[in-house]
Amino acid sequence: MDKKFEEAVKDFPILTRKINDEPLLYLDNAATSQTPNPVLDQIVSFYQNTNANVHRGVYTLANDATTAYENVREQVAAFIHADEAKSIVYTRSTTDGLNLVASSFGDLVVHEDDEILITIMEHHSNLIPWQQLAQRKHAKLKYVELAADQTLDMADFKRKLTERTKIVAVTQTSNVLGVTNPIKEITKLAHQQQAYVVVDAAQSAAHQTIDVQDLDADFLAFSGHKMLGPTGIGVLYGKLDLLNEMAPIQFGGEMIETVSRTQAKWQTAPWKFEAGTPNIGGVIGLGAAITYLNKLGMPWIEATEHRLVTYLLPQLAQITGLTMYGPKTVAKHESIVAFNLRDLHPHDVATGLDMLGVEVRAGHHCAQPLMTTLGVESTVRASMSFYNSLADMDRFVYDLKMVKEFFNRES
Amino acid sequence: MDKKFEEAVKDFPILTRKINDEPLLYLDNAATSQTPNPVLDQIVSFYQNTNANVHRGVYTLANDATTAYENVREQVAAFIHADEAKSIVYTRSTTDGLNLVASSFGDLVVHEDDEILITIMEHHSNLIPWQQLAQRKHAKLKYVELAADQTLDMADFKRKLTERTKIVAVTQTSNVLGVTNPIKEITKLAHQQQAYVVVDAAQSAAHQTIDVQDLDADFLAFSGHKMLGPTGIGVLYGKLDLLNEMAPIQFGGEMIETVSRTQAKWQTAPWKFEAGTPNIGGVIGLGAAITYLNKLGMPWIEATEHRLVTYLLPQLAQITGLTMYGPKTVAKHESIVAFNLRDLHPHDVATGLDMLGVEVRAGHHCAQPLMTTLGVESTVRASMSFYNSLADMDRFVYDLKMVKEFFNRES
Repeated sequence: MDKKFEEAVKDFPILTRKINDEPLLYLDNAATSQTPNPVLDQIVSFYQNTNANVHRGVYTLANDATTAYENVREQVAAFIHADEAKSIVYTRSTTDGLNLVASSFGDLVVHEDDEILITIMEHHSNLIPWQQLAQRKHAKLKYVELAADQTLDMADFKRKLTERTKIVAVTQTSNVLGVTNPIKEITKLAHQQQAYVVVDAAQSAAHQTIDVQDLDADFLAFSGHKMLGPTGIGVLYGKLDLLNEMAPIQFGGEMIETVSRTQAKWQTAPWKFEAGTPNIGGVIGLGAAITYLNKLGMPWIEATEHRLVTYLLPQLAQITGLTMYGPKTVAKHESIVAFNLRDLHPHDVATGLDMLGVEVRAGHHCAQPLMTTLGVESTVRASMSFYNSLADMDRFVYDLKMVKEFFNRES
Repeated sequence: MDKKFEEAVKDFPILTRKINDEPLLYLDNAATSQTPNPVLDQIVSFYQNTNANVHRGVYTLANDATTAYENVREQVAAFIHADEAKSIVYTRSTTDGLNLVASSFGDLVVHEDDEILITIMEHHSNLIPWQQLAQRKHAKLKYVELAADQTLDMADFKRKLTERTKIVAVTQTSNVLGVTNPIKEITKLAHQQQAYVVVDAAQSAAHQTIDVQDLDADFLAFSGHKMLGPTGIGVLYGKLDLLNEMAPIQFGGEMIETVSRTQAKWQTAPWKFEAGTPNIGGVIGLGAAITYLNKLGMPWIEATEHRLVTYLLPQLAQITGLTMYGPKTVAKHESIVAFNLRDLHPHDVATGLDMLGVEVRAGHHCAQPLMTTLGVESTVRASMSFYNSLADMDRFVYDLKMVKEFFNRES
């Protein structure tokens, strides 16, 4: 057995709990990851030792809190290979970051008859903000479709990318199809048309090395809670010259330089986007999560998760009546697997699995236009993390067959 | 000694730490409160036992997380005497809540030549959003001034409130002057003019009983981290019929009913305002904080803090060269005291106190227009909580005199 794995699993006490008298098998990591003890310890330690509001105080506690808060910004920058910490804006979540770009930067660069190009596999959080922007600006929202193998149709992307395209918004990894899109190729083509590229990295940040400079992404957003951190904290990376051009959309303390009765002058980026007391405890937790991920090493995490999906996919493919969505080629597949069982409602499958202690998601996964394209209303989805084992995969397949037999016998 | 006090203090381990070799005396509670162990325990327990994303799952963990998350909404509603939990919107902070009202509701009801009436004692977070709204809408922003005793000039309020006033935005307790404004009277007068009242309760929520129905506030915002909870979570209360009229300003998962390629239909309030994965851990912590406050009892907290300020104010008044801001009458004074020492820069005073372990704030307190009105650039501010003692007040006065003597000898 992998010693790193054995050690890591101990840090997640929730994995030892029982669900309906069965050991928990948590396979909803795409919705939220579990939080290891070192992250929780760091958060508690902050509140018990250093808790103070940031930026505004001259006293020791406030200085220490501010230093800790800004140090994590450096850490985040290093984690995604950003060239400077000022490119890192703390947000509430991926959704919050994507909305900030659509509201502020979108308003700046998208005008009537311009085009916004997104993909049909986007999560609602990287879809509705652009839909709303298009409506506000009387711009055109276009969708890149899926290829036959249910990866992104790059030929369609090239066709739909025009000199009218101002923004391309694309997910790095689909939360349904488990496919990673060729972001580097997309930004190269988009930049040739002077279009800006906004990347939703919610499903990739905890699962592969991200290098924003190599990707040449203009904006990239992700969430702490999907990468072992706490809820309520996210990151928006933006190229600094673009962040500098953008107007803040929230106003209050921290983000100002001066305020008079009639007007206010903003701080520079990233602070002008961080109005009010930020989620300081959340930032501390995010920093601890990055430390944890770095200790394991992103290449190790990637390899571990790839081994899981390589092991699982062929077994699922052998189940009669099981339809898998996304690419069938293991090489193209991240550790997110969406599927349906013939004649069974996904909710019934998930409920059946829950009775056996296996926690998977069933629903539209906040991707209704994709569901429509796939010709379904919802799917079952199992999503893995490095703390899952090959034995977990065996159990999942076994329990899934049990559920299938149970319902087939019923009907 | 008060046994309740003795027991409570034990829950705050940070209070036993040393700052510059002196025992910490934390007097910056208006910036952020300290977080008691039962709140931290509850957060850790959530992550170790029940962590899952809310609303979207059918499995046990997700159901339990959703129940916990929605139960806190009921708890918050009861805490501020709202008539229904649907009136409670989770936000990131007070700032976030006030911005939501200004952006969404403000856009709805304020038009050209309309008037927005705020007070000169507002924190930037209840000032800049209205300044921006006024600019966007070509509406007029008016300020209620201070009376001679540095409380709100209600005669001025009555003069400036007209049939053109669409929104009155006012803080319940000033974060500088330590005065509580007569919200009930303000809402009564405002409603006679069909104006809506937005209350900033950041400085009051942890210090007095709030009854939104009795106050008849249309909106009321506050933060978890100023009331023993974690950072990154806040509450916006709104009358449900007003929340129902308002459009969401953030878009993504959770807040939709249906999404197609061209349009989206929203959930009902409050969920339509909660796009993306919310700060679930923060909500759990907020719930634990309210449980903690309720256990102590808001009347006990209010009495305890009033005893502190009653004890402190006369002692400060006797220090030669000390100018206190806000009302001089103890009966009108909350446990926030802003002051300056003649010939000393507030930052020097705060730094001197820090060397003695006493943590107070120095600055403009995110209230620059108020500073201008007071004729200063900044002040020192000490703000107390129920976990401070009369002995703390003695020490604070003693140390303040030491700092004064030290600098006076220097010069």
